[in-house]
Formats: sequence, structure tokens, C-alpha cells
Amino acid sequence: VILTVTLNAALDITYQVDTHQPGHTHRVRTVHTRPGGKGVNVADVLTQLGEPVHATGLAGPDVDLPDFVPITEPTRRTTTILTPDGTATLFNEPGPHVTAGEWATFLDHYDSLAPHAHVVVLSGSLPPGIPTDAYTQLINRTTTPVILDTDGDPLRHGLTAQPALIKPNQHELQRLLGRTPRLPHDCHELGVPVAATLGPAGAVLSTPDGCWTARPPRPVTGNPTGAGDAFTAALARGLTDRKPWPDILTDAVALSAAAVAAPHAGAYNPTLYRELTRLVDVKEG
Amino acid sequence: VILTVTLNAALDITYQVDTHQPGHTHRVRTVHTRPGGKGVNVADVLTQLGEPVHATGLAGPDVDLPDFVPITEPTRRTTTILTPDGTATLFNEPGPHVTAGEWATFLDHYDSLAPHAHVVVLSGSLPPGIPTDAYTQLINRTTTPVILDTDGDPLRHGLTAQPALIKPNQHELQRLLGRTPRLPHDCHELGVPVAATLGPAGAVLSTPDGCWTARPPRPVTGNPTGAGDAFTAALARGLTDRKPWPDILTDAVALSAAAVAAPHAGAYNPTLYRELTRLVDVKEG
Repeated sequence: VILTVTLNAALDITYQVDTHQPGHTHRVRTVHTRPGGKGVNVADVLTQLGEPVHATGLAGPDVDLPDFVPITEPTRRTTTILTPDGTATLFNEPGPHVTAGEWATFLDHYDSLAPHAHVVVLSGSLPPGIPTDAYTQLINRTTTPVILDTDGDPLRHGLTAQPALIKPNQHELQRLLGRTPRLPHDCHELGVPVAATLGPAGAVLSTPDGCWTARPPRPVTGNPTGAGDAFTAALARGLTDRKPWPDILTDAVALSAAAVAAPHAGAYNPTLYRELTRLVDVKEG
Repeated sequence: VILTVTLNAALDITYQVDTHQPGHTHRVRTVHTRPGGKGVNVADVLTQLGEPVHATGLAGPDVDLPDFVPITEPTRRTTTILTPDGTATLFNEPGPHVTAGEWATFLDHYDSLAPHAHVVVLSGSLPPGIPTDAYTQLINRTTTPVILDTDGDPLRHGLTAQPALIKPNQHELQRLLGRTPRLPHDCHELGVPVAATLGPAGAVLSTPDGCWTARPPRPVTGNPTGAGDAFTAALARGLTDRKPWPDILTDAVALSAAAVAAPHAGAYNPTLYRELTRLVDVKEG
């Protein structure tokens, strides 16, 4: 089983509108609401893939996330405005404040789950009240391989605990290195395997065993929210199945592109996924 | 006491953001949430004015609106995106479905409240499931003077029941007449007193006793959401106190402009209100 951890869960709200014009009033055509947050998206994609997965984290009283440790403050909302031409605009609320007691309760819960997992996925930002080295603590508390997908200080701290793999996008990698990354060269200096996503251009995987680049055969239009989480889901399944690195990368690029074609985070287009799996171009070096 | 009725209540969410760019991801700086809907805004303004008011309507389980008849489906959200330059962008969800039983329960509740009110205010759109002639029914069930503030078919039907006053804005008046309104001339043909708001240009009041135009001394910048409801609150207080028509109009224009200067619907800037009350220019004809 794969364990996903979402410390900053969300209530994802998606609005379909006819146009999006700042300064105007818009009638929302359709409303879609789901429990979200990056680890929840990863778990939803793994479930759609038929992969055994267990999702945990911290969640407020207003979202239905069983087996999450409850916190008092309400879960943050993330609102996505979608127009017919595929433009996605996001508004992300700041996270709720988590108390020291709630964090301690979560650590106990995590200790009961992590030893039973083949792979642990730690995803997303940390809500206020959680220590900046939270991911370091979680990685150090288990011998299970950990995939870390976060940003800024939580990523910088987490690296010191040697996760099995990190999954930055270009912006996160740039913030981590303090300069525009030269890929794949710059990944080596991070000291851990790195799967870096490059948006529509695909991804780069840098490991002690070698380095690979993969790109989808064509651009896919749709809602890119959650595409990175589909990518992480493929990495988690690949590590669980101990697949060769280039196969893991190919699968992750195909699944991520197929997620862009699905209207909401946590889902992918299965027809497109099957098609792209055969067409993704992977190169060593 | 003034009774306000809100059949399509809302959960008003206001986001302060640094910029608003379609296609981008935005970090929300501050989140403000309040129970809303036009009649709730009217009641909140009347409360701030120190006027006895009773607010009722229909509301889902997710908003705290005491003395509203409960419905099963969740209340619609209205999200306002505010930027530092004062640009307000609104996204309004469609309303929840109301069952025939919920509507019948509301009618009984209304019958118990309306006879005790000096003025009834019927505000806003009708959620799905409510008959289009709902406001006609409510006006016909009471001898209390009714102010009607709605749009489209509910307004067209409601007019046939002869409300004491209607409060369209320019767009609502244009839809009602089927052409660009010539003011005040066109109001006469509607057969009921009309207080038409003209945005920053003020308002026109057309009654069998005469016709008046009033404008604020200068434009006020801020959040115009809820300014029309502050205008209606002043009308309701004016009818309750049996003030002369030009005084009611002056007060409504001043209160409405002072509401633009308040950051959220249902509130006004009291200092600005006192100042504008002396400066609003009212003319007969």
C-alpha cells in the first residue's frame, strides 16, 4: 500500500463560467466541489489506477476526509475559475492554524501507518502552526522510502533527511537552487534522486543510476491543476513495483499529461493515458 | 419592525488579493465570510442604523441564519475578489433546489411574521424550485406595505400584486421595460411607485405624489456590492417612519454611497453617511 500525507488539505471548488473579466459579475454555470490538497489528489489518481492507497493528514470539520486527524479550524478553500477556452485561474486561501496538540496527535497516527506502507508520499505546503522541519521529522520517523513534493523551506529542510525522491517543478527547483536550473546537470548536487517536471515539455529524472528526459508527443489542453500530483502518483506506483527508472519516468509523463485532459484534480483521462504511454519519448542523458 | 425576506440566501466570501490576472494562481491575503443575500444585507444595514428588523427566508445547513426556514441543499456561495485598486469581481453560484414542502413551510412561517411588520422587504432572486410568482403570493398574503427588489420574471409577476414600492437598478428597469429607460417618464407606466438606482449618478423616485432625482456630491470608491441593499434599507426605514418622499430619497442615496465605502455588503461607513446626508442634491421633476 502507498501512504499519502496531506498536512494542508483543501476544499477544491471549481467554477465553470462563460467569460472571466476582472471588475465584472459572473454567473457560475456549474459548481464542482471535492476534498483536495496535493496528497489527496495523488491518492485519488492511485485509486483510479486500481492501486492500493491510504490517504491521511490533517483536516477541518468541514470536509469529509476519513482517517485524517481532525483539527478545529476549517479547511482552506481553493477556487478554480475555468472558461470554455481552457483558461484556469486559481485563488488559494491560506491554511488553518494547527495546534501543537493536533500535530502531536498526527505524529502518533503517522507512526501507526508508515511502517505498513511500501512508499510514503509527503505532499504540499505546511499550514500555520506546523514546524518548518515537519517533513524532516516524518522522513526520519520511518524506514519506508519517501517521495517528497513540496516547496521552499519545507523542501530545503526535508532534503537533509534524504528522501528516496523529490519532485520539484521548475519554479520550486529554481527557488531551491537560487538560480535558473541547468537540467539535468544541477540535479546531481542535491544529493538525492530528483524527478523535475517541466510543464508541457515533460520531465527530467536524475538518479545515481543515470539521467533521463521524457516529453509527451504533443501539448494537451485542459486544466493543469493536479497534473503534478498525477506525476507523483506514477512515481509512487513505480517505486512500489520497483520498475526501472526510465519506465517510471515514461509512465509519470503520460499520466500527468492525461490528468491535464481531466476537468478536475485527482483524475486523469484513461483513453489518453493508454495512448500517451506508447508515445512518450524518453532519452537517456 | 421591518421584516426582510431572502429566499435565495448566500454565503458571501470576500478575498483580498494583490493582483487579479486570469490564467494565474493567486494567494489570497485575507478571507472574510458572512451570511449574505440581499435581504440579509438590508437587515444588517438596518441593524447598524439601530432600526428594529427581523430577517427571514430559506437557508441551507451550512450558514448560521437563525429564524430562516431550513432547506436540505447547501446555500449558494458568492465569491468577491477585491484588488488594492478597488476592482471587485463577483462569482455567484446558482441557488440550491427548494422542495415544495420547504416552500409550504416558509409560507406558514411568513404568515406568522408579516402581520406584525410595519414594512416587508422582499429581496433578490428565486432559487430553483420556488414558483416564479412567489413574490406575487407573498404580497397578496399580507396587508403590510411591501418593497420589492428583484429582477426579470419575479419582478414582472410581482408588479401585478401592486407592491408599495419597487427598487430596480438601470439594468433591471431596462429588462422590465424592454428598452433603454427614459427617466423619470418611463416609471409612470409601471403603475406603482419606483425608486430606480443609477449607480454613481444617484437615483430617481417616481410616485403618484411627484417625481424626484437625487445624486451624491462626489463619486465614492470601494466595493459597490450591497450598495443597492443599503438603498433599500433606507427606503424601508423611510416608509416605516412615514417620512416625505424627497427625504426618503436623499437618505437612500447617502446611505447607499456610504455603503460603497464599507468593505463588505451589509455595512456602511457612518462618518461618510452623516457627511453625505447634508450634501446629497435632490431636485423635483
